[in-house]
Amino acid sequence: MEYLSDRVRAFAEARDWTQFHTVRNLILALVGEVGELAAEIQWIGDDGISVALRDPAKRETVSAELADVFNYLLRIADVLEVDLGSALLEKLEVNEKRYPRDKARGSSAKYTDYE
Amino acid sequence: MEYLSDRVRAFAEARDWTQFHTVRNLILALVGEVGELAAEIQWIGDDGISVALRDPAKRETVSAELADVFNYLLRIADVLEVDLGSALLEKLEVNEKRYPRDKARGSSAKYTDYE
Amino acid sequence: MEYLSDRVRAFAEARDWTQFHTVRNLILALVGEVGELAAEIQWIGDDGISVALRDPAKRETVSAELADVFNYLLRIADVLEVDLGSALLEKLEVNEKRYPRDKARGSSAKYTDYE
Amino acid sequence: MEYLSDRVRAFAEARDWTQFHTVRNLILALVGEVGELAAEIQWIGDDGISVALRDPAKRETVSAELADVFNYLLRIADVLEVDLGSALLEKLEVNEKRYPRDKARGSSAKYTDYE
Repeated sequence: MEYLSDRVRAFAEARDWTQFHTVRNLILALVGEVGELAAEIQWIGDDGISVALRDPAKRETVSAELADVFNYLLRIADVLEVDLGSALLEKLEVNEKRYPRDKARGSSAKYTDYE
Repeated sequence: MEYLSDRVRAFAEARDWTQFHTVRNLILALVGEVGELAAEIQWIGDDGISVALRDPAKRETVSAELADVFNYLLRIADVLEVDLGSALLEKLEVNEKRYPRDKARGSSAKYTDYE
Repeated sequence: MEYLSDRVRAFAEARDWTQFHTVRNLILALVGEVGELAAEIQWIGDDGISVALRDPAKRETVSAELADVFNYLLRIADVLEVDLGSALLEKLEVNEKRYPRDKARGSSAKYTDYE
Repeated sequence: MEYLSDRVRAFAEARDWTQFHTVRNLILALVGEVGELAAEIQWIGDDGISVALRDPAKRETVSAELADVFNYLLRIADVLEVDLGSALLEKLEVNEKRYPRDKARGSSAKYTDYE
């Protein structure tokens, strides 16, 4: 994670792009990439998607979109000096209490309620 | 990364939630979390944001939102059997060629063009 | 449309909120609302959704989320002095040429290509 | 509004695209368009944006992105048989109570709380 975050920061620094990397700009950029990810699967449907993603070219495209989202997520965390890994582990602790295993278990209806 | 991805998967499995974790459902969930992240900073403005984020409670909230986004990103990658770290490094290689350091260097205008 | 746009503007003016309604703030607010809309249907799946939306309470909730998205879309257009209706009709003209009826007709694969 | 909704539906019907216009597909398409809108202003910053939008070409692009968002919003409402105008007016009634004019008036801090 730290290595990846460093690589992503170095990429921006080498191009003197960090001046554009304000929190709000980066969040808007993240939104843009999530939009591209959504666009990749917008017309496929739940049934067709596993077939579609068996195509290596489609998988590669979706994979690259995930990388773009991850890229900006790492940049935002870096600019905010947030350790993304630790933040995730802390959030899992919180969720462990919020969604007790026995109560949260199972049905979509329950899940929706819990969310 | 692998440890984090395993933890996130284990959390879902312990609640029998993987049945809901289709690619499209997870992408919609990711959109929901990105929306919450955007909502945290929507009225602050570029100038006010560094002040706002000096408040530990606000930082904690934003940090938790980043964790939620990361959580679903890891789940999507896991379901698609994509190694998010490798995907990012590959994308950086592609971008290294697409945005040559000397040409991409500097101004916001150029940056916009490159994007 | 103009009446709706006026109502939405008046609501903001009555609270002295227009000072927060910069283009970027409003776009981030739009992202937040689209996130809430996505969250409403994230775990339902393509098959379950028509059943779910037969429930009046669920319909009401989704309907209110659509209203929130529309609200910010109207505010953005108003701040930019863009006539949203005219912009849509112009875009339909553009798309009429971009996606000729005979060529664009039909299959999901083609549709994906066209998009 | 009804005329616009009819035009947008007719465009889809003429291409036999309504088969792809499920609620979830359309919401993902909406997310894609909101992403494109965000991408248009991601690197500009709050200060530069009014200058940037004085450029007719940039205004035209942003205007077309707003039209795309509106297009899918109308399609979603149409598929759900929701009257978007009425839904907005109802939501304004709700918000009128939720954010009383005297209490909601003014500062960004208060506004954030109210949201």
